[in-house]
Amino acid sequence: MTSFNLPPHDKLLFTPGPLTTSRTVKQAMLRDLGSRDFEFIDLVRDIRQRLLSLVLAGDQCTTILMQGSGTFAVEAAIGSVIPPTGKLLVIVNGAYGQRMTQIAAALQIDFVALNFGEENWPEFDQIEQALTRDPAITHVSVVHCETTTGLLNPIEAIGSIVQRHGRQYIVDAMSSFGAVPIDLTLTPIDYLIASANKCLEGVPGCGFVIARRDALLTTADYARSLSLNLFAQWQGLEQNGQFRFTPPTHVLLALAQALEELEAEGGVAGRAARYKINHETLMWGMRRLGFQPLLKADRQSHIITSFLYPRHPHFNFADFYERLNAKGCVIYPGKLGAIDCFRIGNIGRLFEGDILYLLCAIEKALHEMNIDLHYADDHGEVDEADWPFATLNLNLAEDLE
Amino acid sequence: MTSFNLPPHDKLLFTPGPLTTSRTVKQAMLRDLGSRDFEFIDLVRDIRQRLLSLVLAGDQCTTILMQGSGTFAVEAAIGSVIPPTGKLLVIVNGAYGQRMTQIAAALQIDFVALNFGEENWPEFDQIEQALTRDPAITHVSVVHCETTTGLLNPIEAIGSIVQRHGRQYIVDAMSSFGAVPIDLTLTPIDYLIASANKCLEGVPGCGFVIARRDALLTTADYARSLSLNLFAQWQGLEQNGQFRFTPPTHVLLALAQALEELEAEGGVAGRAARYKINHETLMWGMRRLGFQPLLKADRQSHIITSFLYPRHPHFNFADFYERLNAKGCVIYPGKLGAIDCFRIGNIGRLFEGDILYLLCAIEKALHEMNIDLHYADDHGEVDEADWPFATLNLNLAEDLE
Repeated sequence: MTSFNLPPHDKLLFTPGPLTTSRTVKQAMLRDLGSRDFEFIDLVRDIRQRLLSLVLAGDQCTTILMQGSGTFAVEAAIGSVIPPTGKLLVIVNGAYGQRMTQIAAALQIDFVALNFGEENWPEFDQIEQALTRDPAITHVSVVHCETTTGLLNPIEAIGSIVQRHGRQYIVDAMSSFGAVPIDLTLTPIDYLIASANKCLEGVPGCGFVIARRDALLTTADYARSLSLNLFAQWQGLEQNGQFRFTPPTHVLLALAQALEELEAEGGVAGRAARYKINHETLMWGMRRLGFQPLLKADRQSHIITSFLYPRHPHFNFADFYERLNAKGCVIYPGKLGAIDCFRIGNIGRLFEGDILYLLCAIEKALHEMNIDLHYADDHGEVDEADWPFATLNLNLAEDLE
Repeated sequence: MTSFNLPPHDKLLFTPGPLTTSRTVKQAMLRDLGSRDFEFIDLVRDIRQRLLSLVLAGDQCTTILMQGSGTFAVEAAIGSVIPPTGKLLVIVNGAYGQRMTQIAAALQIDFVALNFGEENWPEFDQIEQALTRDPAITHVSVVHCETTTGLLNPIEAIGSIVQRHGRQYIVDAMSSFGAVPIDLTLTPIDYLIASANKCLEGVPGCGFVIARRDALLTTADYARSLSLNLFAQWQGLEQNGQFRFTPPTHVLLALAQALEELEAEGGVAGRAARYKINHETLMWGMRRLGFQPLLKADRQSHIITSFLYPRHPHFNFADFYERLNAKGCVIYPGKLGAIDCFRIGNIGRLFEGDILYLLCAIEKALHEMNIDLHYADDHGEVDEADWPFATLNLNLAEDLE
């Protein structure tokens, strides 16, 4: 197995997506297929089936592919499955939970939000109480991995509460699907939403919803859109295997190849293992350099991590970003309201060696900016075990052996 | 200039799209760009500017790219620019005009349709009268090239009527943009909608709307969707050059390359010239084989053509389709209610030699099916000059010289 991307390559994307993909995934797009031709129809059927198997979903579930970004798929789900008299409870602890409330508002769907703050897990008691108090709530939605911070929400425990109260459950698993195990035989998710271009390591342009058939079958007349009509899209895919409207054929060719490569890596478990190594390497190196993560370790995903801006007079994020960019590393700005953070993703076709390269690049950028975080403020939560911060004096060749 | 696709290649797509694209357009997708990185932002700015220049639009217009299929962009336009108290007049002479009424219905937008039948141009008098009679109508929409049949609508003449009545004008130019001249300095179109994967010869996954700024600026609060909010999408693109939600980066890389290749071909005029040769070759060959086009020549576009099912007892479209498919040619079923037709597109990276190859394949398929249309019914409208139908005894090598 490759342990880093071989040069020459594009800048490495340490972002929440679009991500670095394999050469073979991109090469799968060097074809033109007719969207109503049987070869493409077979491809679509295979993709839909493989996606189901990744979350251990059987015949009681079905995959509905949806053109556009992940948000399009989230809007398709929310806009298509909640009846006119329905009400959505949105569990919010980040921008993507917030976005579900914006979708409901734009579609004039009745909703209520429980906002727990961006660094916190949802409080189960409050969810219980909200459902007990308000029988009008028909659906509950939550984001699995909040890319805002990197926080992983306990979708299983929330699902038990939702099920006990007899409501339907919508999970946005955009950034976790394929890299954090989800088991639909154990977790009662009615609508699970994700995208081709996150941990599946495809390219952007197509999202999907995995729906429980018995739930979906009740939603025929609910959609508030023609394009984003989940039920009609499903009917089209079931009746003749085709999309109702032009599908992104090349994106789907890439997704099919990406699913092959996921299987070759050992499925979700294999991919999770690589991402965990990436993430541990990142945390080790960033702490040694003097950076402090935003989140407590118990809720931090192995997907993307928020780091606080260092309290150093020379630190300027735009400058930092550009220096890393010039060294071939694309990191990501923060998305929090009150706290200054930046984000580093470790998903996509990235390996431990790529993370080590990034850490070297960060150390050099800090040096260029005349920043030595070991002489800056004490950042409080850094593990004692990591002290003293020896500067990361990586011999890359040695580390890669 | 290449006069046909060199083997080995994918099946040639004689469809309304997705289409055959050049190898270099597909190769442009062999990269991973960060969607918020300046390299991608520059690419998006360049694409938006180039699209404007193709329709001679200056600073008074702006391009809004929209993820998804062309229908997503049509829905974004209709759903975002018509005020809550507005009313849409849809001019219908095919499935894509009909689709605009379905969008309005799904979004609960007040609308009225004038349906002229799939083989006919709209009657100007009726449009005049509708606008005179109903002052509630705020917007008029029409499809430029109705892919249902291949009919080209007179958008300039309709535009004059709409302008004289002081209404706004929405044109779906999905299948014509890039291959049929549109001049926004002469034709008063407020919202012109098209897609990357038709005559621009990019790959599917992104549409766009070219909007007049002064019209767009009044629409801030009208959108009925978060994802398909045209005004918010425009604001995002203007403010920091970025998409609000993950863009299909690879699709846009392909589009940038496709626009380069369009320019190299001599722009819209150059592309129109190639497509006209393709179309003339197709009509010549199909008539010689005994097929009859659906439309009168005066309204037939050089984009896609509908042919009536031959009245021959051995003709079966599924069989015909599969035989052509096996010979590497993908044609398209019809989309008409009452009349049995099939369609052959001549757009995409296709050349005269590819059309000649298709004609040979069709002749062979007919032979295999034991169909000789010269002994079938007289199809009436076939030009006398083409009689007698000598069988198309093509010497391909000779024709290509």
